[in-house]
Amino acid sequence: MKIEFWYEFASTYSYLSAMRIDVAAAEQGVEVIWKPFLLGPIFNSQGWNDSNFNIYPVKGDYMWRDMVRQCQKYGLEFNQPKIFPAHSVTAARLAWLGAKENWCPQFSTKVYEAQFVAGKDISDVQVLGDILTELELSADDYLARTQDPKTKTGLRSQTDEAVAKGMFGAPSFIVGEELFWGDDRLADALAAASF
Amino acid sequence: MKIEFWYEFASTYSYLSAMRIDVAAAEQGVEVIWKPFLLGPIFNSQGWNDSNFNIYPVKGDYMWRDMVRQCQKYGLEFNQPKIFPAHSVTAARLAWLGAKENWCPQFSTKVYEAQFVAGKDISDVQVLGDILTELELSADDYLARTQDPKTKTGLRSQTDEAVAKGMFGAPSFIVGEELFWGDDRLADALAAASF
Repeated sequence: MKIEFWYEFASTYSYLSAMRIDVAAAEQGVEVIWKPFLLGPIFNSQGWNDSNFNIYPVKGDYMWRDMVRQCQKYGLEFNQPKIFPAHSVTAARLAWLGAKENWCPQFSTKVYEAQFVAGKDISDVQVLGDILTELELSADDYLARTQDPKTKTGLRSQTDEAVAKGMFGAPSFIVGEELFWGDDRLADALAAASF
Repeated sequence: MKIEFWYEFASTYSYLSAMRIDVAAAEQGVEVIWKPFLLGPIFNSQGWNDSNFNIYPVKGDYMWRDMVRQCQKYGLEFNQPKIFPAHSVTAARLAWLGAKENWCPQFSTKVYEAQFVAGKDISDVQVLGDILTELELSADDYLARTQDPKTKTGLRSQTDEAVAKGMFGAPSFIVGEELFWGDDRLADALAAASF
C-alpha cells in the first residue's frame, strides 16, 4: 500500500522522519508519497504566531534535548540551528515542484541536512539554489517558478488539503483514511500501510 | 537504576504507561518510583484553563483515535470517558498517600481502569472509596486524610518538584538528570535506566 508523508521544513521532528522513511518503507514494500506543506497558516488559524517551542520555552528546551537523543538513537547528525523556526515557504514550493517531477525526496533531505546539520538558513535562495545545482537542476529556472502563481496556489492547496484531512502538526502520515501524527508514529503508520 | 514515573490521572497517555511500566521495568531490572502530580496548576500557569485536547478539537479528535489504536497495539481495553479531563485532585492525593506506603501502583492502575475502561467518574469519592476497599484499605480513613493539610501540601510540593524538573506534560519520566516526556519515550527512558 501507499503512505503519504506530510512534512514541514521548519519542523525538527519532520527531519527525523524524512531521513528514515524511504528506507523503512522500502523494507516493507510500501510506496511513499512526499507531501510538503506549511504549518504557519495552520498555527496562525489557532492563534499562534510562533512555534509552540518558542511560545513555551520549557517545552522548547525539552524538544532540543529530545532531538539530540533521538538523532543519536537513529544515527543522524544534528546541530541546533540559529534560526528557528525557519522561514520555509520557498523551500516548500520547490519541494512541491519536485514532487511533480521525481526529485522531491532528494531535494527535501538535502534541505533538512542544510538546516539541521550544516546550520544554514533555508530561507536563503542561495542555499536552495546550491541544492538544486547539486541535483543537476537549473537553480534559476526553479527559483523563478517559486514566484509563479500556479506554484503558490499549488502549495496553498496542499496545505488546505492537510487541514481537510485533520492535520495540525508535522510530520503526519496518511494511510488510507487513517491519520498518524508525529515521528513517533512512523512505525505504526508503515505497519498499517504494509498490512 | 531507578526511573521516576510522573503521571496525572486525567491524562490519557499516562494510562498507557501506567498499565505497562512495572512489567517493562521488571524485565530490565529497573525500579519504578510512582510520582502522581497535577497538570492543572502547570497548564493554568501557561494560560490554559482546559485540556489542549478540548481547546483544539482537531487535536482532541486525533488523540481519541490515537488512544484506540495505541490501546489495541498494547492489548489494553479503552473506552472514551464522558468527562474529560477528569477532576483528579482527590485521586492524586490518595496516590500520594499510597506512595508513602506500598499501594500506589495498585491503586493508580485501578483508578485508570475505573476511568478509561469502566467509564466511571474518578472525582467521585464513592468510586475512589470502592477502590480503596478492594485493596483492603480503610476508605473512610484515607478519604479523610485527603483533606489533611499535610496531604494537600505534600501533593502540591510534588507538583512544584515536577515544574522544577522541567515537566510540562504527562506522563514524564526522570532517569538521573534526564527528562523524557510522553508514553512514546517509555522505552527510551527504561533503556537509559537499565544502561
